[in-house]
Amino acid sequence: MADDLILLSDGGGGERMMDLVRREILARFGPADGSGELARLADAARIEPACRSGRSPGAPLAFTTDSYVVQPLEFPGGDIGRLAISGTVNDLACLGARPVALSLALILEEGLERALLGRILDSAAAAAREVGAAVVCGDTKVVERGSADGLFINTSGIGVIETGRRLGAEQIRPGDKVLVSGTVGDHGIAVMSRREGLRFEAAVQSDVAPLWPLAEAILAASPNLRALKDPTRGGLAAALNELAEAAAVRMRIDEAAVPVRPAVAGACEVLGLDVLNVANEGKFVVVAPADEAEAVLRAMRRHPLGREAAVIGEVLEGTARGPRVTLRTRIGGERVLEMPYGEDLPRIC
Amino acid sequence: MADDLILLSDGGGGERMMDLVRREILARFGPADGSGELARLADAARIEPACRSGRSPGAPLAFTTDSYVVQPLEFPGGDIGRLAISGTVNDLACLGARPVALSLALILEEGLERALLGRILDSAAAAAREVGAAVVCGDTKVVERGSADGLFINTSGIGVIETGRRLGAEQIRPGDKVLVSGTVGDHGIAVMSRREGLRFEAAVQSDVAPLWPLAEAILAASPNLRALKDPTRGGLAAALNELAEAAAVRMRIDEAAVPVRPAVAGACEVLGLDVLNVANEGKFVVVAPADEAEAVLRAMRRHPLGREAAVIGEVLEGTARGPRVTLRTRIGGERVLEMPYGEDLPRIC
Repeated sequence: MADDLILLSDGGGGERMMDLVRREILARFGPADGSGELARLADAARIEPACRSGRSPGAPLAFTTDSYVVQPLEFPGGDIGRLAISGTVNDLACLGARPVALSLALILEEGLERALLGRILDSAAAAAREVGAAVVCGDTKVVERGSADGLFINTSGIGVIETGRRLGAEQIRPGDKVLVSGTVGDHGIAVMSRREGLRFEAAVQSDVAPLWPLAEAILAASPNLRALKDPTRGGLAAALNELAEAAAVRMRIDEAAVPVRPAVAGACEVLGLDVLNVANEGKFVVVAPADEAEAVLRAMRRHPLGREAAVIGEVLEGTARGPRVTLRTRIGGERVLEMPYGEDLPRIC
Repeated sequence: MADDLILLSDGGGGERMMDLVRREILARFGPADGSGELARLADAARIEPACRSGRSPGAPLAFTTDSYVVQPLEFPGGDIGRLAISGTVNDLACLGARPVALSLALILEEGLERALLGRILDSAAAAAREVGAAVVCGDTKVVERGSADGLFINTSGIGVIETGRRLGAEQIRPGDKVLVSGTVGDHGIAVMSRREGLRFEAAVQSDVAPLWPLAEAILAASPNLRALKDPTRGGLAAALNELAEAAAVRMRIDEAAVPVRPAVAGACEVLGLDVLNVANEGKFVVVAPADEAEAVLRAMRRHPLGREAAVIGEVLEGTARGPRVTLRTRIGGERVLEMPYGEDLPRIC
């Protein structure tokens, strides 16, 4: 009977959500043969608008959308406004696309404080300015008290892939190196701490940031860059599993190499969470050829958004069966890093 | 004190919403001089992505976003799925843009029936196929029971302006003719009737439809077409006032010429509504030069989506003050057709 109704875990970024998306969305909107941009389930779609009149279609574009339902609306280090701009800019950046045009659609609950809305919009505007992206269109709806949770924001975005380069899972090869641009778990723990009023609140700030400038530095450092991915819902574990699955490879990650702030590690212990499943909103997973990994690492560490970047693992040949991602643990063992199933932390973005 | 909190009427598509958008959105996201695509408040933004590498930017694009919060989710003649695709396709069509790529972002309430979701997505997919538009990216969020009203959908869209032509209020000139592509008020009354369980339900169906094929026929018939606009929230009255205001002209509309179904007129009488304020989801307001109006009218009437099209008025010189839109009534008088203030029918789209 559970399958008759939508559950919270259907939106958690894990196995259950992938199943919902495949059964309800791809089955209806993808081409019958399972191909097409939508079926790639990438952070953004690559489109090259055809033009019947024969005018040149220009550089390829990236197009992406995300709705933001985070609770609370303001949290340590950010708010839903900064999150909505950053999340969409970062999805575009994952395709190597400079953000050029953003949309901003608000669903407001009757009774929302205008002062709070004002602070959130100030924050969104500042985030857009940080990366030179213009909000060019929008929409405003108001629903009755009790019909929404204060404020939901949808931002969609168009980016230009100026280099024309193709980034994505399908570029990944055995022997490539896997990097992360900084500490993991900060966003999820910051939101959770505010929500639960936990005592570690002061120590953990969300990492929410628009990352296009960092992506630009990585692109410049790695002419054969394979893939960028932002490990949001489902955390690093979901991002690595999605990449490995789509690329039909395996990955081996070195647990000790993954940067984690002590306060975040402590909070995860208290909450019984695996930090590798916790959401990030200002980080990239980077896959680069082995001989370009050092240059990527240096470029990230030189950048304010990537000071704590690290090489965390490598890409191995795929196998027909068996786990996609394994973790070499601190004590020298090896365990499977599974795709999270449902939802450790609901309403995190 | 009312100004401290968001009210339902802030989302009604009328005067109050324009005020909210100017004060909260344009003040933050528009250029300081009040220019830019966002400030045009058109149905979609026109963008011509610049490209630093010097590759040609190609044909201009249209970009738009809308969130859909209609209640009930299914209504006579349509549902939120068909509405979400149609509304976004129609906003693109208002700029003369063929829809090429759509996004689909779902906010699901925990406990939503999967069978209902399935019907709505079937309907959305069918609407997209009608106009050859591909859904290329999406997002799925689930919020706790009581935090949303079953289902909210955001669709954004990218269209290609293949002709390169500029449509919009700024093209409108005194002497132009104003047309509407069919009967008005059908959508709003269909939703309202289902919501209130009114007895006229059977007789009124929503007009919700993706109109790109009709726009293409109009573009072909009118080489100097001025503007297309879809009269959704706030109805014909809001659409005409927005066009006249942005064009700095006046319009005179002939009330008897505006097509209205008898069942819709009757329902408006019962409900105390002005049919000219009631939402449409499958109609265009068209402004064309006088010498092309006849060709536009014929082209629309030949098309299944425009069989009941009519010339309803004309554009006059603007004045520094005074009403923008006047109505010649059936009994020969003249009255001001005002911009609706707040919201006659909440949650209509």
